[in-house]
Amino acid sequence: MNKKFITMKDIANEVGVSINTVSKAFKDHPDISDKTKDIVLDTAEKMGYIKNYSASILRGKKSGLLGVIFSDGSNPFFSEVSKGIEYEASKDGYNVISMNSMGKLPNEKKNIMTLLESRVDGLILFPINNKMEYYDIYNLKHNTILAGQPFDGKIFDNVFTDEFNGAYKAVDFLIKSGRKKIMMIDNFLFKIGKNKRYQGYISALEDNGIKYSDKLHKVVGKLDRIHRINEGKRIIEKAVKENLKFDAVFTFNDLLAFGAIKGLHEVGLKIPDQVCVMGYDDLDLSSMVTPSLSTVSYDKFDMGQRIVKTLIKRLKKPDRKTEDVKIETNLILRASTKGGI
Amino acid sequence: MNKKFITMKDIANEVGVSINTVSKAFKDHPDISDKTKDIVLDTAEKMGYIKNYSASILRGKKSGLLGVIFSDGSNPFFSEVSKGIEYEASKDGYNVISMNSMGKLPNEKKNIMTLLESRVDGLILFPINNKMEYYDIYNLKHNTILAGQPFDGKIFDNVFTDEFNGAYKAVDFLIKSGRKKIMMIDNFLFKIGKNKRYQGYISALEDNGIKYSDKLHKVVGKLDRIHRINEGKRIIEKAVKENLKFDAVFTFNDLLAFGAIKGLHEVGLKIPDQVCVMGYDDLDLSSMVTPSLSTVSYDKFDMGQRIVKTLIKRLKKPDRKTEDVKIETNLILRASTKGGI
Repeated sequence: MNKKFITMKDIANEVGVSINTVSKAFKDHPDISDKTKDIVLDTAEKMGYIKNYSASILRGKKSGLLGVIFSDGSNPFFSEVSKGIEYEASKDGYNVISMNSMGKLPNEKKNIMTLLESRVDGLILFPINNKMEYYDIYNLKHNTILAGQPFDGKIFDNVFTDEFNGAYKAVDFLIKSGRKKIMMIDNFLFKIGKNKRYQGYISALEDNGIKYSDKLHKVVGKLDRIHRINEGKRIIEKAVKENLKFDAVFTFNDLLAFGAIKGLHEVGLKIPDQVCVMGYDDLDLSSMVTPSLSTVSYDKFDMGQRIVKTLIKRLKKPDRKTEDVKIETNLILRASTKGGI
Repeated sequence: MNKKFITMKDIANEVGVSINTVSKAFKDHPDISDKTKDIVLDTAEKMGYIKNYSASILRGKKSGLLGVIFSDGSNPFFSEVSKGIEYEASKDGYNVISMNSMGKLPNEKKNIMTLLESRVDGLILFPINNKMEYYDIYNLKHNTILAGQPFDGKIFDNVFTDEFNGAYKAVDFLIKSGRKKIMMIDNFLFKIGKNKRYQGYISALEDNGIKYSDKLHKVVGKLDRIHRINEGKRIIEKAVKENLKFDAVFTFNDLLAFGAIKGLHEVGLKIPDQVCVMGYDDLDLSSMVTPSLSTVSYDKFDMGQRIVKTLIKRLKKPDRKTEDVKIETNLILRASTKGGI
């Protein structure tokens, strides 16, 4: 890169003032008249001056950046939560930069390093691992929040939806509306037993006297280039091919539910008459697919805001007790389940 | 932030070697045995060492970062193109950090500054402005590529779809299938006359002897918190309320088409019998909405790859002649148009 960066000295020469005056103008110092400030700032902009950020952070200043690591950039869930993150961050003068780990641990690790090296003031991590010691290696707890999934250990602040109850309500509704063979299409990211949506599914079955069957618990493949929609479709088609009997599908997220709907269309099973479909997330698009999707809903903009608010509390007081922020969920019933509209 | 960063000296003390040895181990220098390298790197990782990136870039080293600025993070188009960007960037050892300008010029400006201050080696900009001189203020042309929209001026490399022909084919098809009153729901970002999709729409009308009507050209409101789906819906509902007659809708992107479909459902107009709907982008979800969406399609993963390839050519040779990379489009006909499937 042949780029030549403009310095404060260049601006001082151009305006015909001292470097000290230029520096004071940038800092909005009361010694400098508004007129001079305007001339300096206008000239700086015209010349393409870029504040020497690297020098500033070496001197221990804050970067004003919050870093976000998404676990799957192709899930619209993240763009919906992001709006709340960016809105709330901008209220406190923070800029947000994002990276995508695409469901892979080596990517996530690289992303954590990259963002720390860029000296973000705080880190918002949608993790793909549940080993808390892993996330503590870089002494992250003072400036990091884990989001999207509940974690045990209380090492980090954590913002998540009430997953157990959300899943429980969803599966309980399916059973109450007469379904008995409920498949769950589950996320590959978390170990069995650690995932609260799975636990909610199990408990709802048990409380209704339905025996859990391992065969009906399907775990999706890794991300790579396979979109979650195709993965949901693939699992349904495979299950039908293997002659598995099921009368409802509960999915870890709405994208998988979109895929399940697509797969059920493909194999000619009628929704909801033969198979009900229930998702988790209530994406903007979930009311638009056909049949429209019944799902576990919560306010994603609000979730984004609460993530940033919790992180900023941490940045202001790095040694405060960690906090769990649980977002309430409610069931939205649409055409993909009996009794939906 | 109370964080204490681990230095090379700390690692040297811990391992019991010189700082020089630690430094050489990091650089994979042949002077140092593999065994020592392993011990140093393991210790560094255990201690939570973070390479002092700011110091490195002050010494003029490359950051290994590519910055991306999206114009609307809530459009799944960007996550689909991103996959190609990240895949191709990682092949050349680059990490990708992203920002979202949310359709606002001040955000875009702030994002350009933030990424330049973070010393990205290259910048991928999905711009929301068509004033080329604006994008040149920071001497961006040596390391920046404009993507997503075609631009005149040849100041920057530019990767875009063949928008004029894509839109032309779409509107021509609607006319050939018997439609005469074709509404266009257009993007607010570009000035009239500068937007090639709009020009394609106009030309297809003219070539088929249909008079262009200003009333049928609808421009969406700004982004803010209003999702494009709601904006498409709002425009249809308003048009019907104002008694505007139309028998087809061509939208600037698929999200707006999803909204148009939603609006048409709402007001009770039948798709495609009374109104055909045609989008632009062919998102993963466009085959899933009901009716499934006819749209202008192109390979978004490939687009992402070609953006990075073109940018890397620029970084290797900053003064080479600028390049226009035009991605071919084809029409996908589904249930939202007559003759679709």
